[in-house]
Amino acid sequence: MTLIKSWYSAANDADGSFPVNNLPYGVFQVGDQPPRCCTALGDAVVDLSVLESVGLITIPESPVFSNDTLNAFMASGSANWTAVRKTLIALFSEAGDDRLQADKALQAKAIIPKSQVTMVLPMSIGDYTDFYSSRQHAENVGTLLRGKDNALAANWLHIPIAYNGRSSTVVISGTDVRRPLGQTRPPNTDAPLFGPSKRLDIELEMGVVVGTSSTMGQPITTKEARNMIFGFVLLNDWSARDIQAWEYQPLGPFQAKAFATSISPWIVTCEALNDFMVDGPEREKPLLPYLHEQEPSLYNIKLDVFMQPQGSSTNSQIASSNYKNMYYSPAQQLTHHAIGGCKMNTGDLLGSGTISGDTHNSFGSLLEMTEGGKLELTLDCGTKRKFIEDGDRLTLTGYAEGDGYRVGFGECSATILPAPAFNDDAKDA
Amino acid sequence: MTLIKSWYSAANDADGSFPVNNLPYGVFQVGDQPPRCCTALGDAVVDLSVLESVGLITIPESPVFSNDTLNAFMASGSANWTAVRKTLIALFSEAGDDRLQADKALQAKAIIPKSQVTMVLPMSIGDYTDFYSSRQHAENVGTLLRGKDNALAANWLHIPIAYNGRSSTVVISGTDVRRPLGQTRPPNTDAPLFGPSKRLDIELEMGVVVGTSSTMGQPITTKEARNMIFGFVLLNDWSARDIQAWEYQPLGPFQAKAFATSISPWIVTCEALNDFMVDGPEREKPLLPYLHEQEPSLYNIKLDVFMQPQGSSTNSQIASSNYKNMYYSPAQQLTHHAIGGCKMNTGDLLGSGTISGDTHNSFGSLLEMTEGGKLELTLDCGTKRKFIEDGDRLTLTGYAEGDGYRVGFGECSATILPAPAFNDDAKDA
Repeated sequence: MTLIKSWYSAANDADGSFPVNNLPYGVFQVGDQPPRCCTALGDAVVDLSVLESVGLITIPESPVFSNDTLNAFMASGSANWTAVRKTLIALFSEAGDDRLQADKALQAKAIIPKSQVTMVLPMSIGDYTDFYSSRQHAENVGTLLRGKDNALAANWLHIPIAYNGRSSTVVISGTDVRRPLGQTRPPNTDAPLFGPSKRLDIELEMGVVVGTSSTMGQPITTKEARNMIFGFVLLNDWSARDIQAWEYQPLGPFQAKAFATSISPWIVTCEALNDFMVDGPEREKPLLPYLHEQEPSLYNIKLDVFMQPQGSSTNSQIASSNYKNMYYSPAQQLTHHAIGGCKMNTGDLLGSGTISGDTHNSFGSLLEMTEGGKLELTLDCGTKRKFIEDGDRLTLTGYAEGDGYRVGFGECSATILPAPAFNDDAKDA
Repeated sequence: MTLIKSWYSAANDADGSFPVNNLPYGVFQVGDQPPRCCTALGDAVVDLSVLESVGLITIPESPVFSNDTLNAFMASGSANWTAVRKTLIALFSEAGDDRLQADKALQAKAIIPKSQVTMVLPMSIGDYTDFYSSRQHAENVGTLLRGKDNALAANWLHIPIAYNGRSSTVVISGTDVRRPLGQTRPPNTDAPLFGPSKRLDIELEMGVVVGTSSTMGQPITTKEARNMIFGFVLLNDWSARDIQAWEYQPLGPFQAKAFATSISPWIVTCEALNDFMVDGPEREKPLLPYLHEQEPSLYNIKLDVFMQPQGSSTNSQIASSNYKNMYYSPAQQLTHHAIGGCKMNTGDLLGSGTISGDTHNSFGSLLEMTEGGKLELTLDCGTKRKFIEDGDRLTLTGYAEGDGYRVGFGECSATILPAPAFNDDAKDA
C-alpha cells in the first residue's frame, strides 16, 4: 500500500486521485473526434488507443481501445484486465519499461491534459439494477415509513434486496438533471396532484460495472462473481421522494427514479482496490450458502457528498460515508442477481443502494438527513435545505487512502434544472 | 374490415393469421446466414432485404432491412412505417403493383416457406418494463394477498403501475426456459430455503414495442405516445410465485421474474390493428389530464393460453382472455412511463401486465386460476396442475378477427426445463 512512483510527476501528488496505483478506465472525447478509451494519470488522460496502435499494449482481441466504449475490453475477461494493468504500470512507473518515458513524440500524442477532454459514458449499459444493501439506510428509511420496530422487512437479512432500474437515463457526471414531473398525493388529500416533484433527493451509492457475462439459466458462485466484476464508479440514484411515496406499492419505485442516474466517468478496477478490502459485517442471521464468501469482501472507500446552491461560491460538505458500510458485498449482490438464471451482461451496472453510516452526518440521502423533511440542513453559505432546489449542484466524491497516496474516483456531480414546461390539460385534443 | 385479397393464395385463408391486412415485421434466419428483416404472408416469410435491394421498397434511411434487427426501420419513424406498409400492400394484393406478382425469379428469392426459416428476436431491446394494468388481475392478486377489501392499492385507479424488468432475458418463442433456483420461505417457517421454484407460473400479456425515442427530461403526450408505438407482440412474463412472495417487499419483484420473458416473433403494427380499436373502460376515479385520450384506445384481440405436459399429445386450452380487458391503454402506459423525463428508446418493450377477464377461465395466470394453488386445473389429457411442472409446454396465441380474415400474432411458446444442478454449499471454498 505504498505509492508506485511515476516518471510523470503529476501522478505522484499525495492528495491526487490518479497515481500509477489507480489506473482507472474511461472514455474521452476531444472536440468532435470519435470517443476513445483512456486511463487517468495525475492531471492527464492517457489515450490507450495510441498505446495500442504502436503495439505497447495488445490483447488477443485488439484493437479494443479505439472503440467508443470499454465493452470489448471488459468482455475480453479478467486475464486481459490483469495483463493490461501490468503493462500500464510498467510503462508509467519510474522503474519500469521506458518505451513511453523515452519517447517524447509518443507522449505528446498519448498524454492529454484533462482540461482538453470531455469524458463520456464509459460503457454501453445493458441493464441497470439498484440494490438496497446498507443496513443503516434500510433501517432509517424503514423507520420513517413503518416505525422502528418494523423497519427491516423479514427478508432483508437474507436477501440482497434490489429493483431493476432504467438504463436509458444513466448519464455521466456533469450532465444537468431536470426535475421530474409526476403524480404525488400529499398527506390528507384524496386525489393525486400533477406537477414538479417537491422532494427531490440524492442517493449516495457506488456502482459495480459487470465485465464478463453469465449464461442465461445458469447461476454463478460468489467466486465467479468476483472474477466477473470489472470495477466501480460513484453513483447518484436521484430520487423524487413524493412521487416514490405515492407510486411504490406494490411493485416498487418507477418514475421516482427513472428520470436520471449519474455516474462518475472513471471505472476504478478491482485490482486497484484490492489493497483496501475489509471484512464484511457480523451476520445476525446466517446467510444461505450460495451467498457465502471466505475472504474480505467489502472496500474501505471514503465517500463524501457536497451541495452548492446556484450563485453560491461555497460547496458545502453535507455527508461523509464509506463503502464499507454495506451488509452485502458486490460479489454477493451479483451472485444473487444471477441465482435464478438471470443473464448478466458486459456493461451491466449494479448500484449498491444508498450507503449510510451510523451517524446523522454519514447518511447518504436528504430523506435520512432531514428525517423526511422534518429537519433542515444549514449549508456553509447559510442557506437552508430540506430537499434539493433548482440550480443546486450535488457532488459525490470518493477515494481509498493508501500510505501517501490515494486511489480516487474523481467526482459525480450534476446541477438540477427546473421541471420542463408541460400544460397538463387535454394534450390529446 | 374485409380481407385484402392476395395473388399469393395462402394469404387468403379465412382462419390464417397472416393475410395482406396483417403484414407484421420480424427477423428471420436461414441456416447460418445473417439474420434479415421480413414480413409474414400466409405460410411464408417475405425477405424485405430482397425487396429493398431491387428498389421495390425504399425509405430515406435505406438499406434498413438487411440489418439483423428492426431497430433502424423502427427509428426511421411512423411516416416511413406507413409508406412501407402501403407499398407492401400494393405488392402483395391482387389489385396492386404487379412487379412482384409478375416476377417469378424475384418471388423465388424473396418468398421463403416458414418451415425453412428460424425466427429470431426482432429488435434489440434497450429496457424492458412490465405494467400491471388489468384491473381484474390486480384485484385477483390483491385479494389473494390482502383480502377483497384492500385488493387495489390506493394509487391503482390513478397510475398505470409498473416495474422495470430485465431485458437480458427476453427470448423469442421456442426458446426453452429453465426453472429458476432461488430463496423461498414457506408458510410457518423462520428461515428461507434454497432450491428450485415450486410455484412456477405464466403471465398472459401483450408487449408494446416502442418505435421512436423520446428526449430525456421531456414528457410526452398521449397523442405523441401513439405515434411512437411501432406495434405489439404476445408476451409471457414467467413468474416464480414462491420466490416473488418472499422477495417483493419493499422494492417489487426481482429474481422471481428475471429468469425469462418470452415474446412472439412477429411485431403486429398499429396500422394493422387500427380496425380493431375499442373504447377504454369507464373511470371510477377521474384520471389526471396527462393521461386523457379522446379516441378509442384499446384493442379487441382474442388471447388464448394452452398447456401441454411432456409426452402428452393434447395441447389443452386453459384460458381465454382479450387485450381489451385493460384499464390503461398502451398510449397511457407509454405516456406515464415518460412523464418524469424517462427517455424511451427504439426497441424498448412494455409488457401490459397480466390480462385477466372477469371469469375464471379468462384469468391470465395459474395463480389466479388455481386461487394461489388451492384449486387444481384438469387438462384435456386428464393431467392435473396447480403450477407448471418440468417438461410442460406453455403457449399463448392471439388474433383480431375481421370479416372473413384474421390479424394474427402467431404463437409465444416455451417448454420448461428442470432447474440447473447447483450445489448450494460453500461454493466459494
